[in-house]
Amino acid sequence: MATEAPAIDRARSAQRIERDIETLGGPDYTLSDEAIRRYAYTDVYRNTLDYFTRELEAIGFDAYQDPVGTLVARNRPRGEKVFGIGSHCDSNRNGGKYDGTMGVVTALEVCRLNEELGLGLPLQLISFLEEEGSGFGQMLLGSRIMAQRVTDEELKKAFRAIDDGRSFWEHAEEAGYEPTSWREAIHVLDDLTGWIEMHIEQARVLQDTGNRLGIVTAIAGYVHGDITLRGRADHAGATPMDFRLDPGVVAAMCVLELERLARAAGKGTVGTVGEFELRPGIINVVPAEARFSLDIRGVDEDGFRGVARDIAGFAQDAAQKRGMSAEFTQRQTLPATPLDERIVSALDDAARSTGEPYMAMHSGAAHDTMCVADHVPSAMVFVPCKDGVSHSPLEEASPADAALAAEVILSAIRALAYARA
Amino acid sequence: MATEAPAIDRARSAQRIERDIETLGGPDYTLSDEAIRRYAYTDVYRNTLDYFTRELEAIGFDAYQDPVGTLVARNRPRGEKVFGIGSHCDSNRNGGKYDGTMGVVTALEVCRLNEELGLGLPLQLISFLEEEGSGFGQMLLGSRIMAQRVTDEELKKAFRAIDDGRSFWEHAEEAGYEPTSWREAIHVLDDLTGWIEMHIEQARVLQDTGNRLGIVTAIAGYVHGDITLRGRADHAGATPMDFRLDPGVVAAMCVLELERLARAAGKGTVGTVGEFELRPGIINVVPAEARFSLDIRGVDEDGFRGVARDIAGFAQDAAQKRGMSAEFTQRQTLPATPLDERIVSALDDAARSTGEPYMAMHSGAAHDTMCVADHVPSAMVFVPCKDGVSHSPLEEASPADAALAAEVILSAIRALAYARA
Repeated sequence: MATEAPAIDRARSAQRIERDIETLGGPDYTLSDEAIRRYAYTDVYRNTLDYFTRELEAIGFDAYQDPVGTLVARNRPRGEKVFGIGSHCDSNRNGGKYDGTMGVVTALEVCRLNEELGLGLPLQLISFLEEEGSGFGQMLLGSRIMAQRVTDEELKKAFRAIDDGRSFWEHAEEAGYEPTSWREAIHVLDDLTGWIEMHIEQARVLQDTGNRLGIVTAIAGYVHGDITLRGRADHAGATPMDFRLDPGVVAAMCVLELERLARAAGKGTVGTVGEFELRPGIINVVPAEARFSLDIRGVDEDGFRGVARDIAGFAQDAAQKRGMSAEFTQRQTLPATPLDERIVSALDDAARSTGEPYMAMHSGAAHDTMCVADHVPSAMVFVPCKDGVSHSPLEEASPADAALAAEVILSAIRALAYARA
Repeated sequence: MATEAPAIDRARSAQRIERDIETLGGPDYTLSDEAIRRYAYTDVYRNTLDYFTRELEAIGFDAYQDPVGTLVARNRPRGEKVFGIGSHCDSNRNGGKYDGTMGVVTALEVCRLNEELGLGLPLQLISFLEEEGSGFGQMLLGSRIMAQRVTDEELKKAFRAIDDGRSFWEHAEEAGYEPTSWREAIHVLDDLTGWIEMHIEQARVLQDTGNRLGIVTAIAGYVHGDITLRGRADHAGATPMDFRLDPGVVAAMCVLELERLARAAGKGTVGTVGEFELRPGIINVVPAEARFSLDIRGVDEDGFRGVARDIAGFAQDAAQKRGMSAEFTQRQTLPATPLDERIVSALDDAARSTGEPYMAMHSGAAHDTMCVADHVPSAMVFVPCKDGVSHSPLEEASPADAALAAEVILSAIRALAYARA
């Protein structure tokens, strides 16, 4: 059993978190005056790693970077077991101060509290490179490299800078890194007994339900794809209803069916049509073609994959019934990531003992933790963000909630350490 | 009663019609190598009027142009009653050889037959200026000027050339016309006892039902508008189905309801969504806004206006039920144009007596005849066009069908003349 929880001054934690966040929102840390814009190998990104390095070294951590620039800092020599915490500190090109960065700042606060309170927990902080894909158009790039989910070919050729089209490899070398050793990055995970990432929720569930924390039990997998329906262009005035092959009508049926299927699948499965296009797209022409995108996610593999299969089948049937054709094409898919029950349970206990409102939930968004969880027992903690707004300079989250998260994470790690001991 | 119908050599008519059409598809008559592109005040348009003028003068017609460039030719002095026939000879910018031009060519053939057969019917051919709006973005411009459906202000300021932005007025003057006298154009209609326009159908009803002619009983009126639905943008992965305000789903409901309403209204009422837009229009974002266009037409005023009213109401209700808002805005509307029963009936008799397959139908597309019909008893005849394709270089129609139309129009005018005598 864990010994009694140490008294934590949450207000002071909130102040430190706020100070870190505001500092990193300053002109040395963003390429834009109007938003946070920070991505790999820019000066402002380097300044951000330097900031975390200084702060961590000040409390006795050793900091280094993996072969491509993911920051790692630990308070035990390599080879000794440590518990991992962190997130990413790059941003969307038109980003806010909180997405990613608040997770690293909160991990830093956990490290500070651990030292101040003399808890002596063995910790390793990680700040992943390029989670947002703002530099090279590749989401979760640092954690995918670490988890060996990329290839030499991709790093050398396929992944190119949005700014100048040169390869990731070339940029990494120019910045002083050793991309030839990228496979070594996996060893960052060698000593980890567990991993917890804190992140803003990026949706409005916590706010709308009045909860201050979300304990994430799983990260949704997804299918991204498109359905294209082909009918026949006709004069909108001169073509009677019975003479039409209007694919827009079938597309509309699919939009409604997708909503029905996602609700019926339950378990938090969601389905979204975010893009919808009619061609030629003229007011007085019955469209020849309709295309819409599908974003289908869930933590239940059978659930969300069933929705993807069923909507493709529905489109086929509905199109055929009206003499048209339907084609489903998949853009990308990832399996769901169940999180570690033991860590989730420790977080749940720690959250409950604070007396603050919290809930169990899953993450609909992708996170670096998806890559870590392949190798290390992992979990996540969410804090609310105002109105669910993210990837925007209007993004807002509360340092007080982050301070609460820091306390809960620290308590959970402590409980897990005692349980192990 | 009409005397016995004269023997008409349809094959020869078809040859002449084909020759006219092919001539006017040649390089002197179009600005483009790949399509027919012909609009007001271009050299190729002037060449086209010159061609018709020469052909009509060759059979004893006097030709002149109204104050803005609509061609008029008659075989009786002004002041004597004549029967009007014709269409327009300008084209869509990416047009085919048949839309409009085949109607004028067929009217020319009616004039030729009248002279050759010694029928002595008093006729006036009209080829309207700028039906397509390719020059100044204004559909039915020549016939609207004639019917006094424009204003000085519009002609001087609002109506501007697509090519150079200068006003219609300026272009008309530069081309040698007298736009200051535009109100005089109404007198072109003074002596008309009736009017028949032949046009390609621009849809596939005649082809698909195996008919060679359509006798048009009415031209549809229409409502053009947009419905905009406002919801809330949210993360497509992180936002559970019950937390969404997705206007795309309501828009899809409206697309299906519009189809249902148009079918329920019957009497040939049609409703089309040709434009559909989601904003921001990103695969992984629940849309904040959906906009779609409405094109609702019919010959039954209560019918098509009821559909427009009902779809706006449905959108409002459906949006409100889901906590969103809907806004209907009208772009444009025109009433339906019933055609003259006596002329329609004469055409019907004439068509029946040929033994060829024909049908009564209405026109979903707008035509110059809508403007003429305000002032003169009017009717229209349609011929099939291949697969309903129009406003395209792929447009195709049969000279043999046009020859049949010429014969039927001539017979109808003859019958009407005898009935009057």
